[in-house]
Amino acid sequence: MRITTVGLDADDTLWHNESLFRLTQDRFFALLADLAEPQALHDKLAEVERRNLRLYGYGVKGFTLSMIETAMELTGGEAPARVVREILAAGRELLAYPVEPLSGVDDALMRLSERYRLVLITKGDLLHQEQKLAASGLGDLFAAVEIVSEKDAGTYERVFARHGTGAGEAVMCGNSLRSDILPALEAGAFAAYVPYAITWAHEVADAPLGHARYVELETLADLPAWVDSLA
Amino acid sequence: MRITTVGLDADDTLWHNESLFRLTQDRFFALLADLAEPQALHDKLAEVERRNLRLYGYGVKGFTLSMIETAMELTGGEAPARVVREILAAGRELLAYPVEPLSGVDDALMRLSERYRLVLITKGDLLHQEQKLAASGLGDLFAAVEIVSEKDAGTYERVFARHGTGAGEAVMCGNSLRSDILPALEAGAFAAYVPYAITWAHEVADAPLGHARYVELETLADLPAWVDSLA
Repeated sequence: MRITTVGLDADDTLWHNESLFRLTQDRFFALLADLAEPQALHDKLAEVERRNLRLYGYGVKGFTLSMIETAMELTGGEAPARVVREILAAGRELLAYPVEPLSGVDDALMRLSERYRLVLITKGDLLHQEQKLAASGLGDLFAAVEIVSEKDAGTYERVFARHGTGAGEAVMCGNSLRSDILPALEAGAFAAYVPYAITWAHEVADAPLGHARYVELETLADLPAWVDSLA
Repeated sequence: MRITTVGLDADDTLWHNESLFRLTQDRFFALLADLAEPQALHDKLAEVERRNLRLYGYGVKGFTLSMIETAMELTGGEAPARVVREILAAGRELLAYPVEPLSGVDDALMRLSERYRLVLITKGDLLHQEQKLAASGLGDLFAAVEIVSEKDAGTYERVFARHGTGAGEAVMCGNSLRSDILPALEAGAFAAYVPYAITWAHEVADAPLGHARYVELETLADLPAWVDSLA
């Protein structure tokens, strides 16, 4: 078996993301604590985010707009200006938050990049993802960066055909079964699932246990050895 | 001279965009008319947009956040909830606005696509640009779509190398001298400037009059004949 290309997800695979969203979300809930019970706040935000996903897509700017909209809906359209200002500030901070690679990521990518072509494959705001990659200091290790609006089997087929030698000789690695693992397997690639501490509700799916081209790894540090073992 | 590839900008080259932004902006100014003179409103919004460009990039979501922020700054942080709601609604409408190709664009692209590889090269929200292309009905005419966060000479070099036979055998066509024309010429491509009725202040630049690989055309309908004439 020849492996030429390794695709990597970015958020929560190379650096923290969901935990920062959660912190921002907690700040938002604290801001609205007088208006509703925590569970009701949570459900309302989730409902608004889901409704807006088709229009806003993934990323901080859409999340910020959804938080403002949620505050409006919970106040009968009369959210105090202070609340809106705090949400705007929280969104800006989230966009400007310093990016630090997760422990072991540097070394793992360095080792992988010596033998394989690395491709970053991620959803989210185009500009923000590029900024995060630049800030992470990992940019030079990647042969290509693909920021996509949806991750399905067709996406992986196209990306691995364009930047490698096809999905059959590629490994995809990420923290989302739904976005990184299942569609990559469907496209014919190998797939390494590296779970993150928390998972966005939208991304939950069942693990393809027993699939011949699938593995679950504890950390990204285990990825180079597994990829080498396929060859 | 062999031409293999034609790059096309999207907003205000293939369909209206700036005029819709202007309509939304006018609605925003009307909303805040009690707070400041038109010129002061205009200057303040431009200032906030410029300040946020690095963080928000190009696109409707960032524009919406900048409008809310402008309203806050003009009211000493006390923008009425009604104003914020109206801005949110205006942003959503702008995102969902039906996309119609400018007059003559369909035919011109159809003719070009018979002889050349067409590549859409555009800035803006990834998801929104993909949605607009799908809604325009023009998607099938393009061999590739590149949604980029910045348009400089390096961008055109990379895109025309990846999707064509290099910038030297490519034509770039768009409505922005600063983003579409000057950097494409710098990359070694030919460039056809098709002005739109209005230009975003950020995109203004001087025309490279007399440049051997440059032409200004009145409409996109004139593009196929010019490209053919290069061959």
